[in-house]
Amino acid sequence: MAERLVVVGGDAAGMAAASQARRRRDAAELEIVAFERGHFTSYSACGIPYWISGVVPDRDQLVARDPVTFRERYDIHVRLRHEVTAIDLGRREVVARDLAGGGEVRERFDALMYATGATPVRPGWACGVAGVFGVQTLDDGTALLDWLDGEPRPRRAVVVGGGYIGVEMAEALLQRGLSVELVEQADQPMSTVDPDMAELVSAAMRRTGIVIRTGLTVTDLRERDGRIVAVDTSAGPIPADVVVLGLGVRPNTALAEAAGLPIGPTGGVRTDRRMRVPGVPGVWAAGDCVETLHRVSGMPVYIPLGTHANKQGRVAGINIGGGYATFPGVIGTAVTKVCDLEVGRTGLRERDALAAGFEFVSVIAESTSRAGYYPGARPMTVKLIAERPSGRLLGAQIVGWSEAAKRIDALAVALWNGMTVDEMTALDLGYAPPYAPVWDPVLIAARKAVDALTDG
Amino acid sequence: MAERLVVVGGDAAGMAAASQARRRRDAAELEIVAFERGHFTSYSACGIPYWISGVVPDRDQLVARDPVTFRERYDIHVRLRHEVTAIDLGRREVVARDLAGGGEVRERFDALMYATGATPVRPGWACGVAGVFGVQTLDDGTALLDWLDGEPRPRRAVVVGGGYIGVEMAEALLQRGLSVELVEQADQPMSTVDPDMAELVSAAMRRTGIVIRTGLTVTDLRERDGRIVAVDTSAGPIPADVVVLGLGVRPNTALAEAAGLPIGPTGGVRTDRRMRVPGVPGVWAAGDCVETLHRVSGMPVYIPLGTHANKQGRVAGINIGGGYATFPGVIGTAVTKVCDLEVGRTGLRERDALAAGFEFVSVIAESTSRAGYYPGARPMTVKLIAERPSGRLLGAQIVGWSEAAKRIDALAVALWNGMTVDEMTALDLGYAPPYAPVWDPVLIAARKAVDALTDG
Repeated sequence: MAERLVVVGGDAAGMAAASQARRRRDAAELEIVAFERGHFTSYSACGIPYWISGVVPDRDQLVARDPVTFRERYDIHVRLRHEVTAIDLGRREVVARDLAGGGEVRERFDALMYATGATPVRPGWACGVAGVFGVQTLDDGTALLDWLDGEPRPRRAVVVGGGYIGVEMAEALLQRGLSVELVEQADQPMSTVDPDMAELVSAAMRRTGIVIRTGLTVTDLRERDGRIVAVDTSAGPIPADVVVLGLGVRPNTALAEAAGLPIGPTGGVRTDRRMRVPGVPGVWAAGDCVETLHRVSGMPVYIPLGTHANKQGRVAGINIGGGYATFPGVIGTAVTKVCDLEVGRTGLRERDALAAGFEFVSVIAESTSRAGYYPGARPMTVKLIAERPSGRLLGAQIVGWSEAAKRIDALAVALWNGMTVDEMTALDLGYAPPYAPVWDPVLIAARKAVDALTDG
Repeated sequence: MAERLVVVGGDAAGMAAASQARRRRDAAELEIVAFERGHFTSYSACGIPYWISGVVPDRDQLVARDPVTFRERYDIHVRLRHEVTAIDLGRREVVARDLAGGGEVRERFDALMYATGATPVRPGWACGVAGVFGVQTLDDGTALLDWLDGEPRPRRAVVVGGGYIGVEMAEALLQRGLSVELVEQADQPMSTVDPDMAELVSAAMRRTGIVIRTGLTVTDLRERDGRIVAVDTSAGPIPADVVVLGLGVRPNTALAEAAGLPIGPTGGVRTDRRMRVPGVPGVWAAGDCVETLHRVSGMPVYIPLGTHANKQGRVAGINIGGGYATFPGVIGTAVTKVCDLEVGRTGLRERDALAAGFEFVSVIAESTSRAGYYPGARPMTVKLIAERPSGRLLGAQIVGWSEAAKRIDALAVALWNGMTVDEMTALDLGYAPPYAPVWDPVLIAARKAVDALTDG
């Protein structure tokens, strides 16, 4: 009799695991059933802001693979609109509620893939008022678009929280023609980079017309006839016809906790390097519901991101399929676009380096995306944080107006390999006038960091 | 009494060395005199095709620092239009001819920086005919532009040789409105990447209207009234009003050889890692006149490129100034733009890997520059060559239509650090829909290489 893999959560991590397991074991050996409480499988949550803005015209473009494809091409059975309500480790079965048809199903498993993802943080004040949206699933996006297209037509948007989603959604709503205020509790939005770099982002956002309100706490919402009309803050009310929450997400671990799976200090499910849940044989976890290792600090971190979810799911699936693979952790690389400004970051920010106990120098180097004389050369700012006295790179950030963000990859690979800034000055990076000054911005920054270490 | 550094050659390597030496030792300690036979210092030879095309409007934009700046800011004395004709190691002096004023000067040195650069290869048939140009110095560029703007106005250009300069010059001449034929002795131009990748470049060039003639040997030139009128080839004559040579460059080592400096197997001056000329105390060399170590093959290579010249010059200058720095070699990274097609390469091609005795697999992965659903996503082809069975990356090539070339940097840093393709599948690279699919093109290629190693 075939074994059975049950996947809880049909997005990136769960379906990557299912696909990889299938590559190694056919249906005669391994049945695969996936439960997904939403309407979609394997979609790009990261693409939602671009769908809301209209840059990506069609929701279906965000779906990488639908259930029909999984069934016909991979013999993987996806049950949409089925919410798993319990995992019974003793009986090796899951209980799922059919959200559409009603009723309950039970499914025996030999292997369990826990990939429940995350849910936007929604404070008490944000509950029960129409016109307030998190943005995590395609269903969230559909609901927001319906609201934006509904009557009375919303004109004033307030985005609460200035992380990636908040900033991207502020831009998206602006592009749809709404006036946008971004409310941030801290001194500035985009705290995923250091304040000096974040200031460049704030300035660019302000130039587009987004109003940034910092140092404000949202205390409540005001509604009229059940619809949002204003956000109450520590500095008074801000009128709003629609509110988007960008307060981050929390891992969906309720089911895991109820089943007794171990939860780590960051709040995510713990796994080992093969994405097994330690101490619970046959149970695997991956994606936005797990915590992972930060390779620089050596500490567990919670970094929900599609690219990690896919990699972790792939690793779990290879192992479930009888192969061998490990996920070695992350270094916190991320890129985003904010109103044509490109932002990249990897490794530790100054505050992370301090918290982890490192001594370090940090430098900021101004340069250009192309040779200075080549048309289209735009300013590029590179920040490096290097351990003192070793010179080992701890973190890097790039802000620029053109061809800037993905340059973080070269720094990420250097960081991944434990390079020192001194070693980095010799790196053989691509040079041609349309692509870089003869001293690449990365190399200029590395040289400056070497100088700072010497002077220090 | 101050010591004296004499620099032979006032371009990237020589002047980088001079500047770095000056940073560490002031003029009371170290006099610095540089001889340059041309009209310019510290210019971007790599920028010449873009100046010829008109993309860069003004020659002076290609000059990073002029002699006045060197004198006033750095107390470095540059003698333009002075050609060093002999290096007398016994008497520790150089002899230079004043090309403008006539006469000869002698200059004593304590330290000598040999940075004579390179000269375009010019076969016997290419000598003595007006309208035939190499493109290496700003003076070369001026002469070519004068010819292109002269009467009778040239209409038909033939570029001989399909390396970087040949391909870039073909595009530049096309942009100036000339009809262009590119004559290449081998089966295809752009042999700096493997044939399968080079074919993408050829196809892109042909689409712009450049006629590519392969498998042709140039045997002679035809002239009328002292002006070029045709190129004789093994397949008959090709009419030409102007001929540009893209047959590569040779290191300028005549002076070095006459002085008894050691020349390596590639034809470049030998140096140690600190850019000292071995066995000749007080003599340093850097830039397009030296050979260097290829870190992958472990063999000496001759790769004339501005970025290496600057780095090597900097290293020499730090050491001359009493500091400590080494140049660890190169891995053959290069990028270029060919008619909007972007090309990047690093490490060994298949033929290099074979020549160096490696066993390997190679894979080609098709992907896109952005998430498939994000507007402006363009095809991107990534080729990886990985040692078998170790999986160590030996080389990589990228061809794509947008935001492709500089992605080679992430691969270059991975290669530099000796990563295996298996390790690379876990790399934490920047992901956001405007910048990459959720599986970055680099990661997709790494996965494919892992599969090829497993299947092999």
